[in-house]
Amino acid sequence: MKLVLVRHGESIWNQQNLFTGWTDVQLSENGIAEATAAGVALKQAGLEFDVAYSSVLTRANDTLHIILKEMGQLWIPTLKSWRLNERHYGALQGLNKEKTAEKYGDDKVLEWRRSYAVLPPLLAIDDERHPRFDRRYTHLDTHSLPAGESLSVTLNRVIPFWEDHIALSLEAGKVVIVVAHGNSLRALIKYIEDISDDNIMEVEIPTGNPLVYDLDSNFKMVNKSYLK
Amino acid sequence: MKLVLVRHGESIWNQQNLFTGWTDVQLSENGIAEATAAGVALKQAGLEFDVAYSSVLTRANDTLHIILKEMGQLWIPTLKSWRLNERHYGALQGLNKEKTAEKYGDDKVLEWRRSYAVLPPLLAIDDERHPRFDRRYTHLDTHSLPAGESLSVTLNRVIPFWEDHIALSLEAGKVVIVVAHGNSLRALIKYIEDISDDNIMEVEIPTGNPLVYDLDSNFKMVNKSYLK
Repeated sequence: MKLVLVRHGESIWNQQNLFTGWTDVQLSENGIAEATAAGVALKQAGLEFDVAYSSVLTRANDTLHIILKEMGQLWIPTLKSWRLNERHYGALQGLNKEKTAEKYGDDKVLEWRRSYAVLPPLLAIDDERHPRFDRRYTHLDTHSLPAGESLSVTLNRVIPFWEDHIALSLEAGKVVIVVAHGNSLRALIKYIEDISDDNIMEVEIPTGNPLVYDLDSNFKMVNKSYLK
Repeated sequence: MKLVLVRHGESIWNQQNLFTGWTDVQLSENGIAEATAAGVALKQAGLEFDVAYSSVLTRANDTLHIILKEMGQLWIPTLKSWRLNERHYGALQGLNKEKTAEKYGDDKVLEWRRSYAVLPPLLAIDDERHPRFDRRYTHLDTHSLPAGESLSVTLNRVIPFWEDHIALSLEAGKVVIVVAHGNSLRALIKYIEDISDDNIMEVEIPTGNPLVYDLDSNFKMVNKSYLK
């Protein structure tokens, strides 16, 4: 079974060193170039996808479109789901990472960023950044919607999508591409590579560099390689 | 019920006056500008789409992406189907329209272009342009695949998609956008406006100009307006 994971290209908030999470920011010029290069590399590798998955965030949707266009495969079925969104960064979203460290201390910020199960400060239910005000999430109950997630919480909402869609497609023999985010991809990689809670936060996924897996019949890694 | 139809922006073969059909050509610079303007107009009109449909041809997929990106609605579910493809122009695909008229005579070309039920010259089964050699159609039986279509044949393969997807979404109260082609949109317009076989070929649909319909509970036109 063949699975390709791609982290979206650099966004304008990556450039500005802001906590992004579910904030729907655009790709930077550099991010567009990264996505284009990913498409070129995938085309050169001769990959022919049968189905694509991405989050409901523009930077992932755009990266996927750029890749598939470069490959001449824009026509493949594509499913977008909030379950593949980036980790929700709660009340940190929109804050500068450096200034947040000055305010709360380096240790606290490191804990928010690097611990598996520690939640960031949550968004208030009436905060205008709360996802319940966004039309793309109105089909979800407010209590299902995150106001801030640890990686553990992110993983718990990513895995149902893996089981119900990605794994089923792989089992049916389809070649699958997933374009998502640093932490939703960590959830998938943790599962595929059986990585421990302690070690998964150390796994860094470069932007715009396709990660190609061969999986066995239990959906576990046989081979992995970055294309670039 | 609210339905918006958009004909893809100008393609590079429109510019070069070639018969296109199912040939997968790119948008021209002008076509990209038309798609962008369509997105701006739809955003200004305050439309909020719930679902999008397009063909499996790049010029329609790209037009849809440009529109939804402009509107901040890239996240909506999107379904692509060969049933929304342009009319298949058979062995005429890739030929210059002027030279074809010189070779076959103006009357013959006019008949191919303007009559409802006359087929163009068909592609040979071994012609490399035959859709059976294209991966996007391999799930279809060769006998279902067109080697050349009249508008009547096009209409017969568009309507099942209307019934199974577009009409069901409208009935469920969804606001729908369809980005397709001159002749697949003629099939939908013929149905919605009850236009006769003789008159439908006279209906011209401008590229990149959103056509907004209000429909009654029988899916027939109550109001129509072009946005631009």
